[in-house]
Amino acid sequence: MDKKILLNESDIPTHWYNIVADMPNKPRPPLNPKTGQPAGPDDLSPIFPMGLIQQEVSAEQYIEIPDQVREIYKLWRPAPLFRATGLEKMLDTPAKIYYKYEGVSPSGSHKPNTAVPQAYYNKQEGVKNITTETGAGQWGTALAFACSQFGLNCEVYMVRISYDQKPYRKVMMNTFGAEVFPSPSDRTQAGRNILAEDPETSGSLGIAISEAIERAVMDEQTKYSLGSVLNHVLLHQTIIGQETIKQLEYAGDYPDVVVAPLGGGSNFAGISFPFIKNNLTDGKATRFVAVEPASCPKLTKGKFMYDHGDSAGYTPLLPMYTLGHNFKPAAIHAGGLRYHGASVLCSQLLKDELIEAVALQQLECFEAGVLFAKAEGIISAPEATHAVAQVIREANQAKEEGTEKTILFNLCGHGFVDMLAYEDYFAGKLSDHTISDELLESNIRQIESLQPE
Amino acid sequence: MDKKILLNESDIPTHWYNIVADMPNKPRPPLNPKTGQPAGPDDLSPIFPMGLIQQEVSAEQYIEIPDQVREIYKLWRPAPLFRATGLEKMLDTPAKIYYKYEGVSPSGSHKPNTAVPQAYYNKQEGVKNITTETGAGQWGTALAFACSQFGLNCEVYMVRISYDQKPYRKVMMNTFGAEVFPSPSDRTQAGRNILAEDPETSGSLGIAISEAIERAVMDEQTKYSLGSVLNHVLLHQTIIGQETIKQLEYAGDYPDVVVAPLGGGSNFAGISFPFIKNNLTDGKATRFVAVEPASCPKLTKGKFMYDHGDSAGYTPLLPMYTLGHNFKPAAIHAGGLRYHGASVLCSQLLKDELIEAVALQQLECFEAGVLFAKAEGIISAPEATHAVAQVIREANQAKEEGTEKTILFNLCGHGFVDMLAYEDYFAGKLSDHTISDELLESNIRQIESLQPE
Repeated sequence: MDKKILLNESDIPTHWYNIVADMPNKPRPPLNPKTGQPAGPDDLSPIFPMGLIQQEVSAEQYIEIPDQVREIYKLWRPAPLFRATGLEKMLDTPAKIYYKYEGVSPSGSHKPNTAVPQAYYNKQEGVKNITTETGAGQWGTALAFACSQFGLNCEVYMVRISYDQKPYRKVMMNTFGAEVFPSPSDRTQAGRNILAEDPETSGSLGIAISEAIERAVMDEQTKYSLGSVLNHVLLHQTIIGQETIKQLEYAGDYPDVVVAPLGGGSNFAGISFPFIKNNLTDGKATRFVAVEPASCPKLTKGKFMYDHGDSAGYTPLLPMYTLGHNFKPAAIHAGGLRYHGASVLCSQLLKDELIEAVALQQLECFEAGVLFAKAEGIISAPEATHAVAQVIREANQAKEEGTEKTILFNLCGHGFVDMLAYEDYFAGKLSDHTISDELLESNIRQIESLQPE
Repeated sequence: MDKKILLNESDIPTHWYNIVADMPNKPRPPLNPKTGQPAGPDDLSPIFPMGLIQQEVSAEQYIEIPDQVREIYKLWRPAPLFRATGLEKMLDTPAKIYYKYEGVSPSGSHKPNTAVPQAYYNKQEGVKNITTETGAGQWGTALAFACSQFGLNCEVYMVRISYDQKPYRKVMMNTFGAEVFPSPSDRTQAGRNILAEDPETSGSLGIAISEAIERAVMDEQTKYSLGSVLNHVLLHQTIIGQETIKQLEYAGDYPDVVVAPLGGGSNFAGISFPFIKNNLTDGKATRFVAVEPASCPKLTKGKFMYDHGDSAGYTPLLPMYTLGHNFKPAAIHAGGLRYHGASVLCSQLLKDELIEAVALQQLECFEAGVLFAKAEGIISAPEATHAVAQVIREANQAKEEGTEKTILFNLCGHGFVDMLAYEDYFAGKLSDHTISDELLESNIRQIESLQPE
């Protein structure tokens, strides 16, 4: 049996799949925080190019992928699908386990799937500079790579604690030609305000988003780019699931359960939306499990409310599961999962019980990551270990029940640039985190005034 | 046109190619340093399993790859062959450029190609523990991975300066279950002797080899493993070139020149030996260019002499181009190229003018690596940038001459774990290094007494 199921470059999807077309309950509209009215394209045009805004509000089922984007996808796509034979053997499970591996991309995660089209539409509309934020650095690296392909300048606001502690990612961005600034910086009003309050702040993703947006609004030739959460970002990631459906057809298989970590939602959407379509339109009954860290449990402990996507309140209000935009998650190593909200689309799907959510502690996740490395030879990014841990739970359950279920998960990135996280784990420096109900309630109270009447 | 040329798992070669069978001048035998007589299997059996010793001394043209080894190869092989369309465009060259990409392996380089069969033959013969040395850590990681696949213990002696400065690689080895010790250590006589002389020593590859060999000799259930230089190691890497020949057939192309970095010789051998066979037996006239760092120029400035492979003089004497086993190369970031000698097979081929050699300075190599990242989306290991730099020279020459030559090189590993090297480059901290003739002559004089009469 083949270990990997590979596709040809001609199998790269020709269209992105837009789940809005098939959702039984359409997502509620984003709101302009000043007027309380639904935010339209005009609210977004200062920061995004029109090509992406059209995708953000589209209800078309399929949107064509430009040829130039597909050409760049060929640098690493189609991504391989692996049968996890080593893991199955180690767990002695009757379950069949498959993983799609997105770590083969230039930046080592799924993020370039959307960075490339985002850079493309900006380039098409004459934009010269793109700004963005990054936490641990996965997204910033992906956008830096995409900008290098289109000759665009890229300006990255990197959360200060990561900037100081994780120099490798910064240098990767520099290598692709991007400028990287620790956030908060003195380059924006949002940054200066925070620094005036607390010069020693370690920063946050919400602050960095505010800085990147402010820079984009200041200059006509500059736009902003976001690596998750928004509809068009999730749209671009659906090539992952589309490829996987074809690969599983070759294997003669179909998943009973699909597992992926959820930070903003783009990774989870990428692998699951094309399969959710088959539940909605083709009578399939696959389960979909979004895995979040117990230290940032918006899906399992957050509220479905309108909230900002950033700290300074520059973004439209989005209807989503949130911990409140002032929530400060513990400094876990899975930086990509430390975000206070879940994308509008994933939130609506969870509300409608079309997907499930589970929160896991980081020690269980790192233990799973080490086991997976020995079984399959791939060291996973800390974010990806959350999927591995849940898959192990599902496989062990299959063993207990004696059922032959088929488990699919998205291994969204490798951990080569995250080895200090594993070092801390081996050294016993990591601990589990549980959020107090009081803190959660206090954070939620702070956004109650933002709700429409 | 496809960007990548992929093969199926059934295309993984069934045999390793042994160039000894086709060499016009066979390599001279290794010598037992005590007797001055040719070293035979008995000299090697305290440190290597018989399966590998037989390969070391074999003159068979092809040696079958065990099924279990091919199964593990499937985790990442066949490795992709890329057409470097982005680089060609950036250089505006009429040359066609292809690169085989070995960075897709579990440890991120070509090293697992030999680590897996080495672990396999040890396991077959009942060995429980394998010791080895590592410089920057590529080899140690590969062996740690291979040992994890066979349930073997792995003990790695890591050159102290790398152990202290490059913690990521150490943690990768730990993740695969290996124990890692900074070398020199107090676990061996060789290590204790060096520490007594200089407690603050930063170590060297030669010292670490001595330590690993000493540990293997002390214990019957423990053997030693080397990541380059030896015949059987080069043999295992020939799957790289064999796959590439098939991939280029699909592309309807054949190389006019093959380029690869040379540290000990296994990477160079892997991509080039199957093509050299076609020169020797099939009338082809491809050029083969081994690229070494100007700071460790054994091929271009060393002497063809008998010398030890390690510092303490534990290994047999090998006939090779060498700078003398006490040569201490500058602390360049391309750690895998900081070795005083070249493998016996590569040395004989160079002596017979069947291959060429060139020495490059590191600044030119890093500049090439940055350009390549922007063109092709892959950040290369510092070792691999030496190939990229030479390829750029060849492509520019083709442009000047207006010739349409086909250039092939081996991109032997990614640089995700080497980003501090790029940081030093961007910060202007790196410089070029030229070795003085006096130093070279002094080092060579020290090994004159080792020559047979």
